[in-house]
Amino acid sequence: MKIIDLISERKKEGHIPFYSFEYFPPKTEEGIINLKSRIERMVHQLNPLFADVTWGAGGSTSTETINISSWIERYSGTEAMMHLTLTNMTLEQIDTAIEEAKEKGIKNILALRGDPPRGQEAWRPPEGGLHYASDLVRHIKEKYGDYFGIAVAGYPEGHVDATSKEDDLSHLKEKVDAGADLIITQLFYDDDVFIDFYQKCREIGIACPIIPGIMPIQSYQGFHRMTTFCKTKVPQQILDDLEAIKEDEDEVKKYGINLAIKTCKKLAEYGIEGFHFYTLNLERSVIAIVNELGLVETEREAPWRKVAGRRDEGVRPIHWGNRPKSYIERTLAWDDYPNWRWGDARSPAFGAPHPLSTRNYTIAQIKDLRKKWGSPETEEDVKNIFVRFLQGEINRLPWLEEELEKETILIQNLLVEMNNHNLLTITSQPQVNGALSTDAKVGWGPKSQKLNGYVYQRAFVEFFCPPSFVDAIISVLDKHSSVSYMAANIAGDFKTNMEEGTVIAATWGVFPNREILQPTIVDREVFYKWWRQEAFAVWLDEWAVIYEDESPSKQLLRSIYDSYYLFNVIENDYIGGNIDSLFEEVLTALPSRN
Amino acid sequence: MKIIDLISERKKEGHIPFYSFEYFPPKTEEGIINLKSRIERMVHQLNPLFADVTWGAGGSTSTETINISSWIERYSGTEAMMHLTLTNMTLEQIDTAIEEAKEKGIKNILALRGDPPRGQEAWRPPEGGLHYASDLVRHIKEKYGDYFGIAVAGYPEGHVDATSKEDDLSHLKEKVDAGADLIITQLFYDDDVFIDFYQKCREIGIACPIIPGIMPIQSYQGFHRMTTFCKTKVPQQILDDLEAIKEDEDEVKKYGINLAIKTCKKLAEYGIEGFHFYTLNLERSVIAIVNELGLVETEREAPWRKVAGRRDEGVRPIHWGNRPKSYIERTLAWDDYPNWRWGDARSPAFGAPHPLSTRNYTIAQIKDLRKKWGSPETEEDVKNIFVRFLQGEINRLPWLEEELEKETILIQNLLVEMNNHNLLTITSQPQVNGALSTDAKVGWGPKSQKLNGYVYQRAFVEFFCPPSFVDAIISVLDKHSSVSYMAANIAGDFKTNMEEGTVIAATWGVFPNREILQPTIVDREVFYKWWRQEAFAVWLDEWAVIYEDESPSKQLLRSIYDSYYLFNVIENDYIGGNIDSLFEEVLTALPSRN
Repeated sequence: MKIIDLISERKKEGHIPFYSFEYFPPKTEEGIINLKSRIERMVHQLNPLFADVTWGAGGSTSTETINISSWIERYSGTEAMMHLTLTNMTLEQIDTAIEEAKEKGIKNILALRGDPPRGQEAWRPPEGGLHYASDLVRHIKEKYGDYFGIAVAGYPEGHVDATSKEDDLSHLKEKVDAGADLIITQLFYDDDVFIDFYQKCREIGIACPIIPGIMPIQSYQGFHRMTTFCKTKVPQQILDDLEAIKEDEDEVKKYGINLAIKTCKKLAEYGIEGFHFYTLNLERSVIAIVNELGLVETEREAPWRKVAGRRDEGVRPIHWGNRPKSYIERTLAWDDYPNWRWGDARSPAFGAPHPLSTRNYTIAQIKDLRKKWGSPETEEDVKNIFVRFLQGEINRLPWLEEELEKETILIQNLLVEMNNHNLLTITSQPQVNGALSTDAKVGWGPKSQKLNGYVYQRAFVEFFCPPSFVDAIISVLDKHSSVSYMAANIAGDFKTNMEEGTVIAATWGVFPNREILQPTIVDREVFYKWWRQEAFAVWLDEWAVIYEDESPSKQLLRSIYDSYYLFNVIENDYIGGNIDSLFEEVLTALPSRN
Repeated sequence: MKIIDLISERKKEGHIPFYSFEYFPPKTEEGIINLKSRIERMVHQLNPLFADVTWGAGGSTSTETINISSWIERYSGTEAMMHLTLTNMTLEQIDTAIEEAKEKGIKNILALRGDPPRGQEAWRPPEGGLHYASDLVRHIKEKYGDYFGIAVAGYPEGHVDATSKEDDLSHLKEKVDAGADLIITQLFYDDDVFIDFYQKCREIGIACPIIPGIMPIQSYQGFHRMTTFCKTKVPQQILDDLEAIKEDEDEVKKYGINLAIKTCKKLAEYGIEGFHFYTLNLERSVIAIVNELGLVETEREAPWRKVAGRRDEGVRPIHWGNRPKSYIERTLAWDDYPNWRWGDARSPAFGAPHPLSTRNYTIAQIKDLRKKWGSPETEEDVKNIFVRFLQGEINRLPWLEEELEKETILIQNLLVEMNNHNLLTITSQPQVNGALSTDAKVGWGPKSQKLNGYVYQRAFVEFFCPPSFVDAIISVLDKHSSVSYMAANIAGDFKTNMEEGTVIAATWGVFPNREILQPTIVDREVFYKWWRQEAFAVWLDEWAVIYEDESPSKQLLRSIYDSYYLFNVIENDYIGGNIDSLFEEVLTALPSRN
């Protein structure tokens, strides 16, 4: 979605001011992995309006700009904006970059001229390139019409190359007239300079949102380097304050946080619509500032995290609860996403799921995972890893894409009991009968109707178990008419009491002025055809893969992969059902394992 | 749906034996109106598998055969079968009849040769016509492939024209081989004759269902006329029994009922799949028989009655609750019916609603309605009619297509209070928070999952009121954040707190192994564009129309039509809401009317 449209939406809902975060592409693979985790945490905790990635001018990092932007758009849960500069770029290279961005789902571009190439003092357009940012805006508009949201840079103190502030403002006006729908400013530390700039923009007829760029001071050295490079005017008071604490890094950081808060508060009072934070790929200061400003809204619109490219998506199969990125990836090619009701997965709009992609761990990750999971040599060892995960001693299982934050681990006695008996649980949810949609644990709901809603869940659990357990488990489940189950092994043996075509609502919510929303479901075909394959593949591709070939651990995991069954059990009766007592009955019926 | 497919479905669900009802087309308009009411009552109470209409051979009643069959298919709630005979029909006339049947939604034909034309002893095919029923079956198959379900007649005693029973059976076999998928037999009174016939059919390889035709004895004279005409063998015992009671009509009827029950029980034990009742357009005996056999299943699949042509239809706007036929008519041209979720009424599949059709009362109906509703001359008079309806003193209001049966009138103190204050209610439903789907009053559910479901309703009421009330009502409703409302007059003034595009689930149900079912909704656009027009039109077209032009009643109703507002109020909070206290507040806020 275009950022300008997101801003309009927020205005309509009264959620102004917003905030957004800027990152730069790291130079190493490890750095990129870490940055993604950081972005994910920040998006999850703070819910920014968008995140942007600077252009890796001229280097291989420009590829990473596109990749990280695309990753943000598709997986992070916020909207992405990609920077694009003219430095060292031929028109053909510019077109290639835009084309690739479009292909990868990016819908917003920050169009910049960029700095002169290294070793060159004054800006000259590259051969066969464009000269001004306004040329780039015009070019994008001509070639792509209204496809992209376009932002441009504003310079509160005037661009370093500008002959005068007036001259600079008229350039800015030209960029907006060429089709930009948003201005993001260069950093500044004198609030009045920004306000003056803002007023002048309005005076000459610039009507689009003008978002101040805020760079919290993170370190004394860094601050001086940056302000010198950008020729930023810094009020004497700030220089004096910093001088006094420059030896104490923490104090400098704290000062930077407070200064940014002061600026934001002042600008908010002045009516500014949002703040753009230069994070420098760091998270602590920005988190502190945004929290202190009291602007954070992280309500869950659905039990899973909505992502930028799929605003209309309203329902997903429940299995992927801990593997949302895998689900997104596997459904990338869909024309359309189901809107709060799953319907029929065989519908042509759904398309076939993408094949599984193999996870490539870095060497450091493998080392870390081996430390987490050890080197199991018996099924007992494997079981203990599941139990220790549930008890919080391990923060990740192979079936989870990310480490779980402590507070989201749902420690349930039932699950520990099950795992202790070799029913290895990988997803589950408790029964909920009409909890308030504002409930801290299980609440969710669409933004404007979040209040006054009620949410429901059917108790559900998914687990692997040894083949010798299957008959005993099924004989207990069959006694309970309100229970639906599926069990299958990798070879394709399938036991179920669900008819072909069955789709069960697993989570639903009733909100004012809406039809019923059904954000998660269990679909017989999807379980058998997609999820079973993926859940079993994890044994090999995301666990066994960290051990040496021929090692006992690898052999053990492969034998589990070959022989175990995956069970999906759902208690249809969300009012009178009791999954705890159901599984107590199951556990007592299990044959002994010797 | 084809009847043979319905039978398979029933078998799968274990609901065997079924039963079906046969009617003939009356000769007068009044008779047709009465027959339709009767069919409606019988379908509603007994839920037969299908109903068929005999062919009005050669007369204008053949047109009525098609019309009544089509009406059954579209509106009654059961599947229709149309008889078609060759008597006096050229091939072109046959084709015209089939073509018309198809156009009008009919999907099942009983293909018959028919009797010789009046005044003609032996059967000869008409010029340019077909000779045998098997020719007709073949013809339908050739021309329409698998479009129609085709039934043929079987003669347990042999056809009167057949040279032998064996000869007759081979003709029957020929009809089945030509493509018939069902046999319905001629009437009989000797059960063993039927069983013998049934066995012989199976012996010569007829594998399709063979349904006995049962004609309960309704009167002594009629029985003798019929059995003589059909040359039916009647066991001496029956003749003796009847002879003894022939003077007492009631006794004869009772005897006929008991005899039919005995036959059905015997045949059911023998494994027969269903019974076809010749009703002679009478209802009492058949109702008694079917009830006594204990075969009746009239569970509601949805809060409104499902009809034959729309098996997948799962949701309707709530306003038409008492005008289902009008709703069906207005949506006849839709490509597709929404399946348990309304979604977006602006979807292309929905099409534009048909224009309203004007109701044409017969003179007798007008007389009856004037007696019911009197000749109101003041708004007070009108109000009193609504109140008396709610108190059960009048059994119909113009907004109801049919008289309500006593037990379904929901007498609510709230509604009486409202009408007493000139809020003229036309539809409403109480709040329901998770009642069992088997609840006698508010329960409903899809056949196989009816058990273990829970149903929900948002309290909802729709009423007309004088324009002077509108502001006062809205000022109260606006104080309740969980209430959604719309109010509009015929000129188009529209007051609402619902955003454009709003669709609210009014009724929903949660069933095992399903997504959530949402059978009724309120849709802002549908209310304003379709329902408002229809609800107001009723004042003139279905009420004022019964009075003379220029009469005070007609003038009064027109002035109400011109000035009143139609209100739709729904309490979103189906758990904590209280529509009674809401309207108590509304009533005390109303301005006085002088």
